[in-house]
Amino acid sequence: MSEGRRRSGGRRGHSDAVKVNATPEPAYIKRGINIFQAWNDAQIDRIMARGEEIVEQIGVNITDNEEALELFASVGAKIDGGRVRINGGVLREIIQTAPSEFTQHARNPERNIVLGGNNTVLSPNYGSPFVRRGDEERRYGTIQDFQDLVKLAYLSPGLHHSGGTICEPCDIPVNKRHLDMIYAHLRYSDKPFMGSVTAGTRAQDSIDMAKIVFGDEFVNNNCVMVSLINANSPLAWDGTMIDSMLTYAKNNQACIISPFILMGAMSPITVPAALAQAYAENLVGLALTQLARPGAPALFGVFLTSMSMQTGAPTFGTAEDFLAVNGAVNIGRKLNLPVRTAAGLNGSKMPDAQAAYEMTATLMASALAGSNFVMHTAGWLEGGLVASFEKFVMDAEMNMIVARLLRGQELDDNSLAVDVYQEAGPGSHFLGTTHTQNNFRTAYYASKAADYDAFETWKDNGSKSASERATFMWQKMLSEYQAPPLDETKDKALQDFIAKRKGDMADSWIS
Amino acid sequence: MSEGRRRSGGRRGHSDAVKVNATPEPAYIKRGINIFQAWNDAQIDRIMARGEEIVEQIGVNITDNEEALELFASVGAKIDGGRVRINGGVLREIIQTAPSEFTQHARNPERNIVLGGNNTVLSPNYGSPFVRRGDEERRYGTIQDFQDLVKLAYLSPGLHHSGGTICEPCDIPVNKRHLDMIYAHLRYSDKPFMGSVTAGTRAQDSIDMAKIVFGDEFVNNNCVMVSLINANSPLAWDGTMIDSMLTYAKNNQACIISPFILMGAMSPITVPAALAQAYAENLVGLALTQLARPGAPALFGVFLTSMSMQTGAPTFGTAEDFLAVNGAVNIGRKLNLPVRTAAGLNGSKMPDAQAAYEMTATLMASALAGSNFVMHTAGWLEGGLVASFEKFVMDAEMNMIVARLLRGQELDDNSLAVDVYQEAGPGSHFLGTTHTQNNFRTAYYASKAADYDAFETWKDNGSKSASERATFMWQKMLSEYQAPPLDETKDKALQDFIAKRKGDMADSWIS
Repeated sequence: MSEGRRRSGGRRGHSDAVKVNATPEPAYIKRGINIFQAWNDAQIDRIMARGEEIVEQIGVNITDNEEALELFASVGAKIDGGRVRINGGVLREIIQTAPSEFTQHARNPERNIVLGGNNTVLSPNYGSPFVRRGDEERRYGTIQDFQDLVKLAYLSPGLHHSGGTICEPCDIPVNKRHLDMIYAHLRYSDKPFMGSVTAGTRAQDSIDMAKIVFGDEFVNNNCVMVSLINANSPLAWDGTMIDSMLTYAKNNQACIISPFILMGAMSPITVPAALAQAYAENLVGLALTQLARPGAPALFGVFLTSMSMQTGAPTFGTAEDFLAVNGAVNIGRKLNLPVRTAAGLNGSKMPDAQAAYEMTATLMASALAGSNFVMHTAGWLEGGLVASFEKFVMDAEMNMIVARLLRGQELDDNSLAVDVYQEAGPGSHFLGTTHTQNNFRTAYYASKAADYDAFETWKDNGSKSASERATFMWQKMLSEYQAPPLDETKDKALQDFIAKRKGDMADSWIS
Repeated sequence: MSEGRRRSGGRRGHSDAVKVNATPEPAYIKRGINIFQAWNDAQIDRIMARGEEIVEQIGVNITDNEEALELFASVGAKIDGGRVRINGGVLREIIQTAPSEFTQHARNPERNIVLGGNNTVLSPNYGSPFVRRGDEERRYGTIQDFQDLVKLAYLSPGLHHSGGTICEPCDIPVNKRHLDMIYAHLRYSDKPFMGSVTAGTRAQDSIDMAKIVFGDEFVNNNCVMVSLINANSPLAWDGTMIDSMLTYAKNNQACIISPFILMGAMSPITVPAALAQAYAENLVGLALTQLARPGAPALFGVFLTSMSMQTGAPTFGTAEDFLAVNGAVNIGRKLNLPVRTAAGLNGSKMPDAQAAYEMTATLMASALAGSNFVMHTAGWLEGGLVASFEKFVMDAEMNMIVARLLRGQELDDNSLAVDVYQEAGPGSHFLGTTHTQNNFRTAYYASKAADYDAFETWKDNGSKSASERATFMWQKMLSEYQAPPLDETKDKALQDFIAKRKGDMADSWIS
């Protein structure tokens, strides 16, 4: 009668690791359950008031970008060298032109996403120089890895987005790899994607390539890219990032304004203070998008994580990370802007239990808070240094579960099963009832990366860990991958564009 | 400038896997953040109304327990054979005598817990016949394993409770092992614990042993045990469980009323219907405790999980599990009773990524909903069949994080760091500021089971997975374990009691 033993589990049954869904998943999550607010309204107000003090009294450094300084001067900022101080209320006024909700178009319209409001979009890993796949040691990423990860994201219903720098293709010169990355997103996927931000010219290349596929006029009038604009925390913006930001904003493409903060190093160590600073940095970045082009789409974004005070290393999935993300989403909601957070984070070197504890804790933090755009939700390993193929497919399944959680459940006569006890009564079971038969296909979703076979079956299959099984999953997915159709003329035009742009530049392996 | 690379991580530094806390952890969690309610009030009301229909129209089977049938008959229930049908409003009225909050006393008063209200208590694994530890294959648990797990729970600040059948000591006859289990909790720990429920006489033995340590009068007037009373879902209670329940309730000891439901098998397959049934079963069980002794402490409890419709195996950490637990806690709160849920659940055969994804998802579900007593939060593996030593210590660290999350953060001038920018401005860092120095000891808590060293350091240390490091953790803990003091006279009296009771019975290996 002890609890662990009163179970029907262990029925023999063999199941493929990769199954086809009965119905296609929606392109993004429309939340049906309540949001979780760990902080009270009054607390968020106080944090925001402190953020506005910071931007007014301390200010923000803007380096190497005269245009930005001029834009801020034009709205009454005090400019002292590169230091910009400005009234917080003025900035809040300026950012009111940014849309509270907007559509990012995918080249397959069924994959369009809506950012903001009650919607959540889960996006894959971003920015890792290394990859881990199968039995290989950790090594630098290549364009082949990049294309493979784009294909896996395309095939994963738990990912609503193709992401951006899903790993660094380190075998391509630094000044040219953005072309191959954008091409991979456009060629091997039809999900929405992110543009290059490492230089204003590369932002422009991203836009030009999007125009080849979507058409000039369509891109002028619609958002087809969201791009990650990191602040140089604390309280600094560098000219290159701002160049990319201004390029996107002027072209009506969405900027994700995102302080990247290891709390304790790049901000004060306490969560409320870190949030206040992140808000101050956002106010400046968001305002700049609207000064460049009022109405340009933009996201209030944060990357906030704790650090080990013993070693200075970033730590992930802590209580403080959870509370920071929850507070940030609340701030963004108060601004009536779409919010971007990060999840799937962890410091593990391999796709093991540590990776999964921290991944899940960070994913719950973002998802339950109601974040609109969640980056890094699949594949992130080792503090972001590594894109793991095994973790990618396991995470994408965890995303499926979180998507169902956020969508919630209908409460109606069917889900209350009002007639079921006419077929099954006290002491019996429900497996054969009409209600079960009518509902079992959609009642539950369990991770396809999980093994629920009986111990003996699992042992007969080689006693494989989740990450060992995940190797089989991604290999099978890649072996069965078929590219979504792309008009041959457009494909040719993309390739010509890339060839021309590459021909214009000498290789650089530095920046 | 890509996000994964803008990090200070990887500073070399070596840290022991097991560290001593600077300050002792509180004995339980007093929640400081808001609760998360996935369901709306009106939805919970509708589910409860359906549950009351079930108890009135379908009823519940009670087998082999005349006393329970007489108690229900005395309050107007219709008894038809063993089927009890009764008005839901009557049952709600009866259970109002149960306390909304009560103290479970530990033999060390500093370990006392308060169940109910804004409090959360995290308790370890319960009921597993098998164990996994170190390199050993899965095997049946022994009393040595049991004692070791009790010691680990004692040493883990992430566990507020010693639990009950933390694993099954299968080397002791079934009819005698409860004596050795209760002794282990009393001798090797001073945290609160759970009593035996496998027979009314064993419940009485548990009470008698507690009286030796706490004193007769103290036990008569105070709760010193909480014990798990599982319903035989659907809609049935068996006589043995009720015997134990009545024994505890009459002695003023707390019963955890808990349907154990694999949704789809032991209840209808849809979450709202499963919740309605679990509520109906609770109403009957809770009422019985109050009919036996008005005012006896009792918990509204559930174990609810989804199942694979392909194989019939239970699945864990799904969206449906999360929503079920969240709804259950809401129901318990509406009844103004302490609530018991389960977390740390997973179907994995080893302490790998699957185990951790599912563990964390289930822990977040219980913790954020505001469950008061969460069972199975450390060590549970393979659907509860296995108590894993490695997972035990990793889970206990995840519990520490969740405890900090629930406690929340102060919002004051210090946490807003109002003066910090006088020492560190835009573009600088905060590591050396007075604010950081004043706060770094308490600012963050990262799992001691996690590795945040640089890749090279980790590799030099043998490229160990989280579970491999966890082996070292529990071995070190056990090697350094020191038993809390126990009065020698009481210890002798406990041993005499056990010897006498064992002498009274022939060994039984069946029940």
